[in-house]
Amino acid sequence: MTLAAPLQAGDRRALAKAITLIESTRADHREQADALLTELMPATGGALRLGISGVPGVGKSTFIEAFGLFLLAHGHRVAVLTVDPSSTLSGGAILGDKTRMEKLSMDTRAFIRPSPSSGTLGGVAEKTREAMLLCEAAGYDVVIVETVGVGQSETAVAGMTDLYLLLQLPNAGDDLQAIKKGVMELADLVVINKADLDPAAAMRAQAQITSALRLLPTHAHASQRVLKVSALKGDGIAPVWDALTALRAEREAGGAWAHRRREQSLAWMWERIHAGLRQAFTAHPAVHAQLDTATAAVREGRMPASTAARHLLAAFESRSLE
Amino acid sequence: MTLAAPLQAGDRRALAKAITLIESTRADHREQADALLTELMPATGGALRLGISGVPGVGKSTFIEAFGLFLLAHGHRVAVLTVDPSSTLSGGAILGDKTRMEKLSMDTRAFIRPSPSSGTLGGVAEKTREAMLLCEAAGYDVVIVETVGVGQSETAVAGMTDLYLLLQLPNAGDDLQAIKKGVMELADLVVINKADLDPAAAMRAQAQITSALRLLPTHAHASQRVLKVSALKGDGIAPVWDALTALRAEREAGGAWAHRRREQSLAWMWERIHAGLRQAFTAHPAVHAQLDTATAAVREGRMPASTAARHLLAAFESRSLE
Repeated sequence: MTLAAPLQAGDRRALAKAITLIESTRADHREQADALLTELMPATGGALRLGISGVPGVGKSTFIEAFGLFLLAHGHRVAVLTVDPSSTLSGGAILGDKTRMEKLSMDTRAFIRPSPSSGTLGGVAEKTREAMLLCEAAGYDVVIVETVGVGQSETAVAGMTDLYLLLQLPNAGDDLQAIKKGVMELADLVVINKADLDPAAAMRAQAQITSALRLLPTHAHASQRVLKVSALKGDGIAPVWDALTALRAEREAGGAWAHRRREQSLAWMWERIHAGLRQAFTAHPAVHAQLDTATAAVREGRMPASTAARHLLAAFESRSLE
Repeated sequence: MTLAAPLQAGDRRALAKAITLIESTRADHREQADALLTELMPATGGALRLGISGVPGVGKSTFIEAFGLFLLAHGHRVAVLTVDPSSTLSGGAILGDKTRMEKLSMDTRAFIRPSPSSGTLGGVAEKTREAMLLCEAAGYDVVIVETVGVGQSETAVAGMTDLYLLLQLPNAGDDLQAIKKGVMELADLVVINKADLDPAAAMRAQAQITSALRLLPTHAHASQRVLKVSALKGDGIAPVWDALTALRAEREAGGAWAHRRREQSLAWMWERIHAGLRQAFTAHPAVHAQLDTATAAVREGRMPASTAARHLLAAFESRSLE
């Protein structure tokens, strides 16, 4: 494998090939991917990792295009990755990412990659995390990880990024949905898009969301964390970047930035270990043979759950004696 | 083992011995405990399982004593179990449960058992779940599982009970703490204690908490879910029981009651399986030898987390080849 050198030199084709390699499920590819990632590790970590989510219709693509073009104009190089859990069902991203962000995708200083199209959310998130490292090694200094506002993908994305931006529509109720789903709690910045369509509604939404944020653990500076933009007109983009930059400076100074990254890496390691253990467990012949019966017995109240767990673990542990 | 018969006949000494048996970590005791639990399973499930929590000073013991005595007077038999994560640090419950609930503990129709005093929160919760089944088999038709409002114990208790009651003090701010910690979301019923001390403050708290509940996923009938009591004077206890009974009837009719129990049992089984897998993983010699190095490499950004996870899993998987 000689992908490392051209990738680090900024060859987008080499980066795309490297991401295809890490997405492969073939064992020999996986070994090559691990070797490549380990080789590139010293070159990673330099980017601002930004998570962005919002419900369908909020204007995510339009915002990311406007925001990305703003960053390019200010000398940054921007990569956009997507975590789309629904793509694992449909076998491909719902929306063609390149047609969604036409101008950004045509610029050679930007790199856009759709979601891996198979695997569990955990698996997709793992590939995206690894792709993020590759983008950093390739010199992109802003890596955006975008997700649609469904299921648990917001948590996965917030767990792999430095800052998490939640896009909201300027109407009442939308903010409550985000609170109910626990997404608001993840947000470092809430951006109300389409603020030009109904300025009065956008103002109300801003006040509502600000007071909602005060209820949450991450409520410091709530009033500075809710902004209004019109991505279509390009209004309000610079203040978003300023707010993110200010948050970064504050957290870097206090050590929280580096701390979050370390914790994310360790949490990620354990998440993958647990997923691997669970897979090995359910795939084990003795467990596989008993799992349905045990599940039914627990569900129907015939066997205590803890007893069933102990029996299944004993079956799993016995494999070395076989 | 002939504990099953006297336990089912209502012998409190047999019940206490059975709980001591399930709390034992000796392998032969564990086998006996599993056999006993499995034998008793058909006799379980008949109780109302009620979780109660609240911050220190809210008057939990006073409330449970007043509530328990009310239930005894109405023909019920009441068991009180405690999940106290701090007892795993101090090697014993902070407060002597029997002195806390003097009248209740002296009544032969009640059974009070302090928290297991060793193990992780998951381990303590497992023992409490099993003790709950034993209490049901012994004929207690209301089993209260109490926890102090610290750490993750509220979630553990809500995960093993049918209904979850949160005790609150009549002052502003307290309710916000509960929202921030995600505890309010678990509550089926919020009871404001010490309402007699400052009726106006209690009224304000009731209004505040009601509007806070409306923000949460479980916001149905928010106004009927916040009650005021004075446990010390015994005021307002009957309406609490009425509200719990109404909730039970509603959920039993809709099937949600049985569904919750099935889901709790399966979640409990998987929680114990995951804990067991993790324990087997970290105790494995090859993993043990590499874990510190891998953790440091991930923490310092020298190795991708997913690569470290794969290496460690490979070390664990290789044991059957040794």
